[in-house]
Amino acid sequence: MLGLCLFAYFWAACTASLLAPEADRPSLLEAASKLEKLQLSEEELQWVHVLSEGWAAPLEGFMTEMEYLQVTHYEHLVVNGELVPMAVPIVKACSADDKARIAGKDQIALEGPDGSIVAIMTKPEVYEHRKEERAGRTFGITHAGHPYIKMIMEAGDWLVGGKIQVLKQITYNDGMDEWRLTPAQLKAKFAELEADAVFVFQLRNPVHNGHALLMQDTAAKLKAKGYKKPVLWLSPLGGWTKDDDVPLKTRMAQHHAIIKNGVFGDTPVVLAIFPSPMIYGGPREVQWHAYARLNGGATHYIVGRDPAGMKHPAKDDDIYEMWHGQKMLQSAPGLEKVQLLPFTFASYDTKAGKMAFFDPARKADFVSISGSKMRKMAREGKTPPPGFMDPEGWEILAAFYQGKTEL
Amino acid sequence: MLGLCLFAYFWAACTASLLAPEADRPSLLEAASKLEKLQLSEEELQWVHVLSEGWAAPLEGFMTEMEYLQVTHYEHLVVNGELVPMAVPIVKACSADDKARIAGKDQIALEGPDGSIVAIMTKPEVYEHRKEERAGRTFGITHAGHPYIKMIMEAGDWLVGGKIQVLKQITYNDGMDEWRLTPAQLKAKFAELEADAVFVFQLRNPVHNGHALLMQDTAAKLKAKGYKKPVLWLSPLGGWTKDDDVPLKTRMAQHHAIIKNGVFGDTPVVLAIFPSPMIYGGPREVQWHAYARLNGGATHYIVGRDPAGMKHPAKDDDIYEMWHGQKMLQSAPGLEKVQLLPFTFASYDTKAGKMAFFDPARKADFVSISGSKMRKMAREGKTPPPGFMDPEGWEILAAFYQGKTEL
Repeated sequence: MLGLCLFAYFWAACTASLLAPEADRPSLLEAASKLEKLQLSEEELQWVHVLSEGWAAPLEGFMTEMEYLQVTHYEHLVVNGELVPMAVPIVKACSADDKARIAGKDQIALEGPDGSIVAIMTKPEVYEHRKEERAGRTFGITHAGHPYIKMIMEAGDWLVGGKIQVLKQITYNDGMDEWRLTPAQLKAKFAELEADAVFVFQLRNPVHNGHALLMQDTAAKLKAKGYKKPVLWLSPLGGWTKDDDVPLKTRMAQHHAIIKNGVFGDTPVVLAIFPSPMIYGGPREVQWHAYARLNGGATHYIVGRDPAGMKHPAKDDDIYEMWHGQKMLQSAPGLEKVQLLPFTFASYDTKAGKMAFFDPARKADFVSISGSKMRKMAREGKTPPPGFMDPEGWEILAAFYQGKTEL
Repeated sequence: MLGLCLFAYFWAACTASLLAPEADRPSLLEAASKLEKLQLSEEELQWVHVLSEGWAAPLEGFMTEMEYLQVTHYEHLVVNGELVPMAVPIVKACSADDKARIAGKDQIALEGPDGSIVAIMTKPEVYEHRKEERAGRTFGITHAGHPYIKMIMEAGDWLVGGKIQVLKQITYNDGMDEWRLTPAQLKAKFAELEADAVFVFQLRNPVHNGHALLMQDTAAKLKAKGYKKPVLWLSPLGGWTKDDDVPLKTRMAQHHAIIKNGVFGDTPVVLAIFPSPMIYGGPREVQWHAYARLNGGATHYIVGRDPAGMKHPAKDDDIYEMWHGQKMLQSAPGLEKVQLLPFTFASYDTKAGKMAFFDPARKADFVSISGSKMRKMAREGKTPPPGFMDPEGWEILAAFYQGKTEL
């Protein structure tokens, strides 16, 4: 598999699945049941999901130490002397006891949090989980008030890497599995739609009309460039997020409502959940987000201010500089294949009574409706100014913030 | 200049000097005297030295924000889509007042700590000095007990990058300038010696007979591989070091003594000071050390345990994992041209009464003489076991530790 994916610039075409053929699974499960077992956390299971479908191709399993070192130092894997974008550590932690238990084993089985066998790992390599260093290199801070760093600090003191073969399709039985499309399924979908441009919007928030305006504008610009059938790929992140983010279920309901109500105009929209966890890694993580979507068939990537950013846990400031994400993407080796579409700033135009691109000539007419302002209004049952968000979408959000949504 | 240096794999051959031709200097100095000025710290002047002689080629000045981002994220520069190794930020700090003073200037002058003009910077670009993030990404820790992080934290809140033209040869008038050879001078020297292999040993400590044994063994191995004339390049780091390191003057005196006394056998030795400051950056810095020496004509690089490492300022442990430096060098894109010679462990063989390669079969015969043990003996006027270090070299070191050396 790896060999097939390596030639420079061809990896995007390679949607390596690590899923065992269905016919082989019963015997593999039988064999796996006799192996030493390691349990996956919820977040690690999501990485298995990511790996299994080829979002992180050419990676064939949890990172070995050499892969981990390349990724933390270079934000790339070095594959046959070529650099392949891979900006976030995809690792599995274990305890000293686990380490002793699997020492010298040629194969081990990975179990989901529910105890069912998910995958077989071959030639597991155990290496030190250098937590402070991992945090510093990944995020530029080591403060455990960062929610992903907190998770790192609480994980086992060892990491275990190695190739995996996944023995079942990862599903969640949360009513949203049908929206979890693999890169292969997405590419088939884009082909079916005869898309000649696929512009992707990475999401972990509800969509307001400023976003919708941007999407419509992007489609228009692509058409002006000569593309006949630009398709919008709305790609909400479906894995682990911090506690105060809007849950996936609410976001998906909101996305469904606004698509139904036509906020994106006549541009075809493909809505599909991206199975990755968030790491809140800013300029590093945005490269992962873009690369994974390249593996899923994107040709254009929309990037805004402070992508994958958050507030500093100990300072009254953001962790990352707001334009570093865009700047890193602009020069990222291996990401030249995906064209960047920098985000144009839209805010509420009080004169026009709708979201509009900011016009510096009549600055006073524009009001910014921040995420915290929006959350406050939703909680207090207030209605945002007309034209801010599709009303049905707003109702879904308001119901969530007022505690009326069953999660 | 840049254009000439870029083609993949050719940069090693490119020893770009940023030094203005001698004939042009008077008029350039005259012009520079009328420009806004920024003062260099001692350490920044050392980086000008490094830049001026092409150790960091194809870099043509202090890093701009884009270069700084590439280096902190990728440990490489992206030059025409090619990755060129560049693992440490080479940056100049300034204050908010400085920033206001140079705003919009097309050129500024850089002054040494003594107030003399050293260089002209063209199109200075000022960007935020994100100190915590710089520390985290560079070292994997953010603790200001690390001496280079302390220096970062105390520096100005802005960085200024841009191409420089250097208006004078950087000298120190410390009696050691003749041992500061440029990459061009070194290459000429290696050619004069008809070297067909140049193996470099990066140093910031005195040389004991274990090191000497390793060098002799390396020369023998290179000859066994078919090299006719391997040359040892002893390359002590000459820039800023932390307070408890042995000063350059003492180290150089020790190196001169042991070379005179023939501890390296019949291998030709070129001793020359590497003008870079230390950053104590472990697996990141070792890549800088190897790349700079590649620019200076090295064909083989000796790498040991925990290169460029130090104790963690807040833990009873080293900051870096001891083999990560070697592992990173093994897969570093752009460093394939320099062949690695992993360090073989030598310690004191009490039976043979000399430094020898460790023999696990008679473990009990070997005693490790650590740096701190050595320092204690030197301070207390004790003599190390015979054969540990060339006696004249030891006297120089002992005199320093007993406070008898004039610095």
